[in-house]
Amino acid sequence: MPNPTAAMLVIGDEILSGRTRDANMYHLSGELTAAGIDLCEVRVVSDDADAIVAAVKALSAAYDTVVTSGGIGPTHDDITADCIATAFGVKIDVRDDARALLQAHYDSKGTELNEARLRMARIPDGATLIDNPVSIAPGFTMENVHVMAGVPAVFQAMVATILPTLTGGAPLLSSTYTINRGEGDIAGPLGALAKEFPALSIGSYPFQKDGKFGSNIVIRGADSAEVEVARSKLAIVFPE
Amino acid sequence: MPNPTAAMLVIGDEILSGRTRDANMYHLSGELTAAGIDLCEVRVVSDDADAIVAAVKALSAAYDTVVTSGGIGPTHDDITADCIATAFGVKIDVRDDARALLQAHYDSKGTELNEARLRMARIPDGATLIDNPVSIAPGFTMENVHVMAGVPAVFQAMVATILPTLTGGAPLLSSTYTINRGEGDIAGPLGALAKEFPALSIGSYPFQKDGKFGSNIVIRGADSAEVEVARSKLAIVFPE
Repeated sequence: MPNPTAAMLVIGDEILSGRTRDANMYHLSGELTAAGIDLCEVRVVSDDADAIVAAVKALSAAYDTVVTSGGIGPTHDDITADCIATAFGVKIDVRDDARALLQAHYDSKGTELNEARLRMARIPDGATLIDNPVSIAPGFTMENVHVMAGVPAVFQAMVATILPTLTGGAPLLSSTYTINRGEGDIAGPLGALAKEFPALSIGSYPFQKDGKFGSNIVIRGADSAEVEVARSKLAIVFPE
Repeated sequence: MPNPTAAMLVIGDEILSGRTRDANMYHLSGELTAAGIDLCEVRVVSDDADAIVAAVKALSAAYDTVVTSGGIGPTHDDITADCIATAFGVKIDVRDDARALLQAHYDSKGTELNEARLRMARIPDGATLIDNPVSIAPGFTMENVHVMAGVPAVFQAMVATILPTLTGGAPLLSSTYTINRGEGDIAGPLGALAKEFPALSIGSYPFQKDGKFGSNIVIRGADSAEVEVARSKLAIVFPE
């Protein structure tokens, strides 16, 4: 049975302008791979309502699970929750359970739950909340879309919350074999190996080190014995 | 006049599996911003022909310029050039000019231009070559799509080659103002400022440092005087 599929939607001008280097895609990709869920596509869009709505609709329809990152804070450029409501054709308003979380949090700090902060309690109808142990303001799950904050510490905490609820597949096992020759020297035998093991994914990731070419061959598959057989065959053709 | 628009397509299982952290998106986003070209969307897809062809078609139709990264090497998993040909409905074969570049390069190294390496001379009909000063095998430009290697050093060299040929807009100027208060405290006045300056993009990027909340407010626009006026107004409301 093929693994469940996932996509990620990164929302934020700061990634597209080059101001911030992505951290959440890198984190999520590793976590999903370990859980046996195939991350098939990532999109990064700006803080633009039409772009966000279109991407949510496309990804939600095409993949088992979608994770979004960014745009659920209290400021004017945080429009993700409203876009999710639009994409699913549901209403959105301040919800009592989310408001209660924020009220208790800000009461304990002696801080006012003002209009801006209350925006973070706006939850689309029918969504369930995602716990935020770092800064309380919750994410939420709407059908197969998990909406999370963009601040990496909060994003990572929300991923940890949601991962056990997802149905994983067979964790993809991988074995890396380094060949200190250029890709052009190894491509022929490598292609033959890929044909011999159609159930495995065999990737070649070239590098240049101290002026010499080499490539890391990564063999991925759900069956560890098969991965090792393929690796052994590779090692016979290209001894270390 | 609005700035020209761009999109990026990152092709490669290694990003989606979490094996490699993206570097090319981060590099390109900064370069385009400096050139006054708005990077509006990024997609990351796996080494899957249907996914690549669909993304190339969608992005090429929606944006002025598309840059792709990855999948143009000599191994079996390098299928980008063929996918570009499919997306544009043109033929692809080994082309004499690309073959000549590779032949001269490998002759000088005393290396055989074998069948695998010759794959890197496969160029879609009608494309123009992009110079590769690092490892010779060229990228190419097909209509508004610039096809580049995934190895960061090669990708960066190809970006440097192609950037002067693109029509830039007014470089986006940005000014950052740090406020050592939580976003919830500043969101109201910030939203009012954004409404007062509709030509500017005003983003809030929260952080947590030494247990205290703060936010970097980034004001972006093409008119430096306007950016500075908005920053001054912000500094009056939230003095340092």
